[in-house]
Amino acid sequence: MKLYYSPASPFVRKVLVVAHEKRCADRIEILSSKADPIRTDMSIAADNPLGQVPTFYTDTGQVLFDSRVICEYLDAVTGGGLLPTDDTRWSVAVRHSVADGILDAALLARYERVARPPEYRWDAWDDSLMRKIERSLDLLERDIGDLDGVVDLGTVAVGCALGYLDFRFPDYSWRNSHPALTAWYQKFSERPSMKLTTPHT
Amino acid sequence: MKLYYSPASPFVRKVLVVAHEKRCADRIEILSSKADPIRTDMSIAADNPLGQVPTFYTDTGQVLFDSRVICEYLDAVTGGGLLPTDDTRWSVAVRHSVADGILDAALLARYERVARPPEYRWDAWDDSLMRKIERSLDLLERDIGDLDGVVDLGTVAVGCALGYLDFRFPDYSWRNSHPALTAWYQKFSERPSMKLTTPHT
Repeated sequence: MKLYYSPASPFVRKVLVVAHEKRCADRIEILSSKADPIRTDMSIAADNPLGQVPTFYTDTGQVLFDSRVICEYLDAVTGGGLLPTDDTRWSVAVRHSVADGILDAALLARYERVARPPEYRWDAWDDSLMRKIERSLDLLERDIGDLDGVVDLGTVAVGCALGYLDFRFPDYSWRNSHPALTAWYQKFSERPSMKLTTPHT
Repeated sequence: MKLYYSPASPFVRKVLVVAHEKRCADRIEILSSKADPIRTDMSIAADNPLGQVPTFYTDTGQVLFDSRVICEYLDAVTGGGLLPTDDTRWSVAVRHSVADGILDAALLARYERVARPPEYRWDAWDDSLMRKIERSLDLLERDIGDLDGVVDLGTVAVGCALGYLDFRFPDYSWRNSHPALTAWYQKFSERPSMKLTTPHT
């Protein structure tokens, strides 16, 4: 298996956390990339028109994306367990959607603040994205008490989302108003799968 | 079941096409919404912090999002068939990712062109989004020949993506350079599920 990788991408991190949790990370060859919101890495785009990391290749050469599909694939081919097959599947999937929603908003906010030339920045858009993140954290704060010790695609995605906020928005003090989430994350981020995938530039 | 709805949303359309294909559309109560990229509909945000349509409620009151999760749920509770359970599942899921990637890029391009005040628009971002769409259509053009008559979550998503381009980007003449996709879409869009869900303002 192969994976187009960026050490700063939270979506790549989700895939790698799943790989470590399912003990198949050593079977994945890492391909470096130059992913960028404006200048597409054309070596990735040759196989994934969206030009994004993560882009993944199975052992038979099939190209998989996006991160959600790759995570589900890795879980399935290693015996499952991170995405339930019974009715609890849907709450895990929705939690994954909340975490990905935080990440989508956070990446767009970062593009707005860093990639976009200053004269074209629009504060109302940035505000709208940050409110989306705040509401999502508030929802997680209410629900996270039931998730102590739970490792599934939902909690992995939440862990990667919180890690991304700390990495790219160090002044965004989400912990102040989310004590339960803070406690959960402190414990979850001690997992080897999380420590081995700490984001960096 | 209940669904927060907008007649212009391609992601809502995916859900409704699936509902019609699986003959459960008459069991879904439609809730109108005022979804907007900047001014969040707070009645939706009370249950979905991302504030987006589609937001869906099961008969037991569980809240589901995003559209991918809702589509998979509707398929599963009506006996499956639109997302294979064997190895062909992954190619369907990747096609769904391509189509959703077109839609994500198209919605961001529309926000850039319509919602964002003219003085804050950034042509390089718009160009990057449109190239992503173009590359995705090129990929579909190569693959679509194998999909004549195939109805699954991948082809439904592709149909809704092409319908959205026609609806919101009427001057974007994607048909000129994509004859196979044009022929496929012409036939697919004749399905009752597609005709019953034609987007409008």
